Amino acid sequence: MVYLTGFHAIKERIKVCATDCALFVAKPGPRAREIVSLATKSGITVIRKGISELDRVSPGHRGIALEISGADQSAEVTLDSFLENLDGKENVLAVVMDEITDPHNFGAILRSCDQFNADIVITRNRRTARNADIVAKTSAGASAWVRSVCVANLPRAVERLKEEGFWIYGADMKGTPVYKSELRGRVCIILGGEGAGLSRLLKERCDALVSVPSFGRVDSLNVSVAAGVIMYEVMRQRADDAPAR
Amino acid sequence: MVYLTGFHAIKERIKVCATDCALFVAKPGPRAREIVSLATKSGITVIRKGISELDRVSPGHRGIALEISGADQSAEVTLDSFLENLDGKENVLAVVMDEITDPHNFGAILRSCDQFNADIVITRNRRTARNADIVAKTSAGASAWVRSVCVANLPRAVERLKEEGFWIYGADMKGTPVYKSELRGRVCIILGGEGAGLSRLLKERCDALVSVPSFGRVDSLNVSVAAGVIMYEVMRQRADDAPAR
Repeated sequence: MVYLTGFHAIKERIKVCATDCALFVAKPGPRAREIVSLATKSGITVIRKGISELDRVSPGHRGIALEISGADQSAEVTLDSFLENLDGKENVLAVVMDEITDPHNFGAILRSCDQFNADIVITRNRRTARNADIVAKTSAGASAWVRSVCVANLPRAVERLKEEGFWIYGADMKGTPVYKSELRGRVCIILGGEGAGLSRLLKERCDALVSVPSFGRVDSLNVSVAAGVIMYEVMRQRADDAPAR
Repeated sequence: MVYLTGFHAIKERIKVCATDCALFVAKPGPRAREIVSLATKSGITVIRKGISELDRVSPGHRGIALEISGADQSAEVTLDSFLENLDGKENVLAVVMDEITDPHNFGAILRSCDQFNADIVITRNRRTARNADIVAKTSAGASAWVRSVCVANLPRAVERLKEEGFWIYGADMKGTPVYKSELRGRVCIILGGEGAGLSRLLKERCDALVSVPSFGRVDSLNVSVAAGVIMYEVMRQRADDAPAR
């Protein structure tokens, strides 16, 4: 069972799917009331709870929590069903997150995936950030919208993407500056973990490495800023319709 | 008196200036020992403290804290002295932060300023994020490197920049896509607060507004990701040496 407590995250989740959740309300302030009204319109069961009851299921709540039962949204898509439905689509952006363990970074990256129109996010079953509530809050609700799949074996998923004509780029400080890389067409961006970077098995499968150039005196960019910049560059090249230099 | 507790932030601060600080050590683990050794080499006084003493001056420490006395680094630069020393420099990037109140966002933006080589950061005396320790941690130490000035009146500072030939761009969702804007030469980017965006007095002084285009279903980008993308675009255009389209 997953509980969301961010006002924004709850609203976005209700909009995307109202059939698998219930709303718990302990303190109906103005923002909570707005959500209750949205939930009622969407046919969601609204349940009055005591503060201490809500504390038990979801510490850190602000008087309201959305309980999500059963399979989550992403379970409805598989990598295969996604690839089968591409129908010759030319520009496709897949984002692979390899061991991004900080839920704030994970959420911020999902928000950028939404903003820059990533078609799918692929994560690993284990070792990825798993605090759905922080992720939903940091992503400002984008975690409810962005199509994502979990796979047991990331290198195998990357091989599948290659078979479907994707070019595989790993984000790495030693890579080619991202604005010099050709990022149109079917592109997969692999983002490594905060500390260790790309794992060897994934790095070996990359067609090229891309970097966000740094002039700084401290270490590299925060992974979520770097991810945002790379996805922006993909969007820019497509909008610009001019080759990379 | 300001206390830094992040290992990385302390190291960077010691490297940039060792004359105005003292190092307090309560629990010498391996990372703390490394810092003690660096501090000793830099001529900094190292003082053994009890855990409870350290708790009092800097809750949230991890066994070590750098006490910084007197004026901070940025006090040595004023906007006027910065502008007087430009010496006809052609490409200059100034970043104005208008009421960025979240110290995590503030720190992340400073880190991007370091990465993308911003020449100066201008903030307001009041209403800006003021938790030096969180800022230093989130910026991974960049707050010690990035040249920054505090001014009492941001609109007046922007007028000064205009007199020196700066083009003033405000970050705003309704602006021209940032990759279609000419960002070479002397450029000032104004970043508005997390909620309210640009204040009216600053917006009126902008030569143009720039946006990071969104295809997303949730609200705009996080301000620190948006700031990173805009500064990246400035860097890209300069490196590329081709006009914006």
